[in-house]
Amino acid sequence: MAKLTNISGFPEWLPEQKLLENALIEKIKEVYESHGFVPIETPSVELMSTLASQGVVDKELYTLHRAGSEQDKEAELGLHFDLTVPFARYVAQHLNDLVFPFKRYQLQRVWRGERPQKGRFREFYQFDVDIVAREHLPVSCDAEVLTILDKAYTAINISPHLLKVNNRKLLHGIYAGYGLSEEARKKAITAIDKLDKISEEGVLGELSQIEGVSQETGQSILNACNLICPATEAISRLEALGIEGELFAAGIGEMKEILSLLPVTTLERMELNLSLARGLHYYTGIIVEVHMPEYPEYGSVGGGGRYEGLVSQFMKKEIPGVGVSIGLTRLMDLILSNNLLQDTAPPAAQVLVAVLNEEQRVTCNAHAETLRQAGVSTEVFFKSPKLGKQIDFAAKKNIPYVLFVDGESGALEIKDLLSGEQENVSDLESWAELLS
Amino acid sequence: MAKLTNISGFPEWLPEQKLLENALIEKIKEVYESHGFVPIETPSVELMSTLASQGVVDKELYTLHRAGSEQDKEAELGLHFDLTVPFARYVAQHLNDLVFPFKRYQLQRVWRGERPQKGRFREFYQFDVDIVAREHLPVSCDAEVLTILDKAYTAINISPHLLKVNNRKLLHGIYAGYGLSEEARKKAITAIDKLDKISEEGVLGELSQIEGVSQETGQSILNACNLICPATEAISRLEALGIEGELFAAGIGEMKEILSLLPVTTLERMELNLSLARGLHYYTGIIVEVHMPEYPEYGSVGGGGRYEGLVSQFMKKEIPGVGVSIGLTRLMDLILSNNLLQDTAPPAAQVLVAVLNEEQRVTCNAHAETLRQAGVSTEVFFKSPKLGKQIDFAAKKNIPYVLFVDGESGALEIKDLLSGEQENVSDLESWAELLS
Repeated sequence: MAKLTNISGFPEWLPEQKLLENALIEKIKEVYESHGFVPIETPSVELMSTLASQGVVDKELYTLHRAGSEQDKEAELGLHFDLTVPFARYVAQHLNDLVFPFKRYQLQRVWRGERPQKGRFREFYQFDVDIVAREHLPVSCDAEVLTILDKAYTAINISPHLLKVNNRKLLHGIYAGYGLSEEARKKAITAIDKLDKISEEGVLGELSQIEGVSQETGQSILNACNLICPATEAISRLEALGIEGELFAAGIGEMKEILSLLPVTTLERMELNLSLARGLHYYTGIIVEVHMPEYPEYGSVGGGGRYEGLVSQFMKKEIPGVGVSIGLTRLMDLILSNNLLQDTAPPAAQVLVAVLNEEQRVTCNAHAETLRQAGVSTEVFFKSPKLGKQIDFAAKKNIPYVLFVDGESGALEIKDLLSGEQENVSDLESWAELLS
Repeated sequence: MAKLTNISGFPEWLPEQKLLENALIEKIKEVYESHGFVPIETPSVELMSTLASQGVVDKELYTLHRAGSEQDKEAELGLHFDLTVPFARYVAQHLNDLVFPFKRYQLQRVWRGERPQKGRFREFYQFDVDIVAREHLPVSCDAEVLTILDKAYTAINISPHLLKVNNRKLLHGIYAGYGLSEEARKKAITAIDKLDKISEEGVLGELSQIEGVSQETGQSILNACNLICPATEAISRLEALGIEGELFAAGIGEMKEILSLLPVTTLERMELNLSLARGLHYYTGIIVEVHMPEYPEYGSVGGGGRYEGLVSQFMKKEIPGVGVSIGLTRLMDLILSNNLLQDTAPPAAQVLVAVLNEEQRVTCNAHAETLRQAGVSTEVFFKSPKLGKQIDFAAKKNIPYVLFVDGESGALEIKDLLSGEQENVSDLESWAELLS
């Protein structure tokens, strides 16, 4: 007998759960499409040279091998760990076939060989939107992406969400103010990103190992991270920090412009959080994470930011971009673990046609087809047991109506399982039109 | 500079091609859902013990490894090569949470490490429907699955399709008639499956190596395979073969019942083809393949059949099933290579809001939002160059309408790019309602 076990970190949903996931996907897709984004998909694999050194630890990559082939030669292909790196490669590869600014959405599974834990999987869905342009991408695009992110979480309506934003330019500006070189600033960002995982003390320890960072400077950097405030107060609070230098000023200027382009409803759900760093190397400007304060144990349920150099690693062209990713599988885990949205999934079918004996089956099939043509999803029962059994089946599957052909009169009867009422229907098409 | 190459066998579409693929998916999904099938998805990986010996050559399997981990230990996980085997495992694993008969559809990528060639990929989409039941699954389910398969290809409307059907019971019946043991019959099926790939002579050679098959018997088996006729003549032509024995009689009886339950439209596109064998080991009854006679070079673009033992390999229960798979990626290849359906993909957005200067942007965003709320997908141009440039952009993206705010009067103007007409719109909501 073959083994039957859950493969840890590879989630699998029951049909009613998948229906719920599909409903979420539809709502997010609607928001993305309403802004004119077009879908793309990329292969599940990329060359290892494309995936390497983009901020994901190498051992978290899955490589692909042909079964039985020699395993000792180095892997050429790996499964992608996010959709941003494949997207950048896609843009470079199809440059001449795309219209810029190129606005795309992408829903695919990604893989990370990390230790599975609460809300963290080895295979999971991300649902991304990005905008890229040739040479220059105005920050109005950063604002559009933030707006869309807010609209998507509002549309799926799971639990109130909070958009935490920061800007890599601000972080570089602060660290530069303390005299850190560019290289040292990047290391500082990596250290600060661990604030949630290791203690302040741990982060301080890491900071003090960076060249040019004294114990005191490390403490000052940590202190600056403590600035958390509503987005509406962000600019005045940043200015009050009194940090000098072009980098910081550029960061404030950029944030000011982005915030001025956001709808009030989005601003209201946004905070500036200077401790937000995000792990991936490629961000250069705004960074954002979505949290659900009622479920802090899930951490970030979405996020993204601005990047400049991702496409240019493949070609000598400047193609800046900004994008965000919705962590669909983590959201599903949050929803299912907390029994949210349980009544929102639609039934599998609207009508069950009961079959009282096998001689009726062809007639039953024809009635079912009439209903389907009118847009009513219809199942014909696969056997012909007593009517009661077939009604039980419909009830178990939440199918609201059972149609059957009276054995003697040949009349069509429809039973409404919710009200318990039964009616004689002479014109099935008209009845179906009322329903659909 | 990172390398930029196509990875052979891993297809990637441009956005307008992906829009077309999505339109196909929607049409197929509509057919599946109209019959009350529910969606599921399984992980991309299964235990190697689940994947092994299901009729796919081992070296066609892809195995997964963590980068940098020791490669010499045997792989535990492999990427699935079809959706039927994972589905059988799913049914066994979630038996107590499913309602039977369980009717599901499943759209996912599958992977096969075979040599890429015309219409054959290493990563491709399959779109499956299956019905499974406890203990007994009436052949009315076989008929439903064939009907759905026909409806799906009719709905996507690429090119006339032909359903080739056969029945493993007929094949076993014929071979048993020539005295072949069950083991020998299975080998004969594997040999006959190669008729398209190797010559008749090659198949004869393989047949004559099976125990108990003389040169003469081999030739007789090959001759029987030559029976190809319209489905409406199938029963009389089978009976005319004059083959004795219970197995063959059971095959005829089953085919008779299935054919009697098919709509005329489906029967008209169906032929009995005794040379159809299908490679996978698990089929036990009806087998079907979909071909597009205008594009013979693509071979089968879909297929499936009845299986009995797939679920029971995981548990001591009889759970027979019947299902078919639509080869979505192969269809896409056929469509794109032959420039079919080129005008059916919708535009990315219905309206472009042109921005004449950056001071207008907030107002333009608000108008765009009004349109989106009314169900009209709308893009706001990301910069503010001359109006002509923005109209060019809309034309390039097939966006039919350009809206702009007159710089002096503040009036809303909408240009219809198809007619070239421009109108002043005082009530944007009413205009949007007419459009959507």
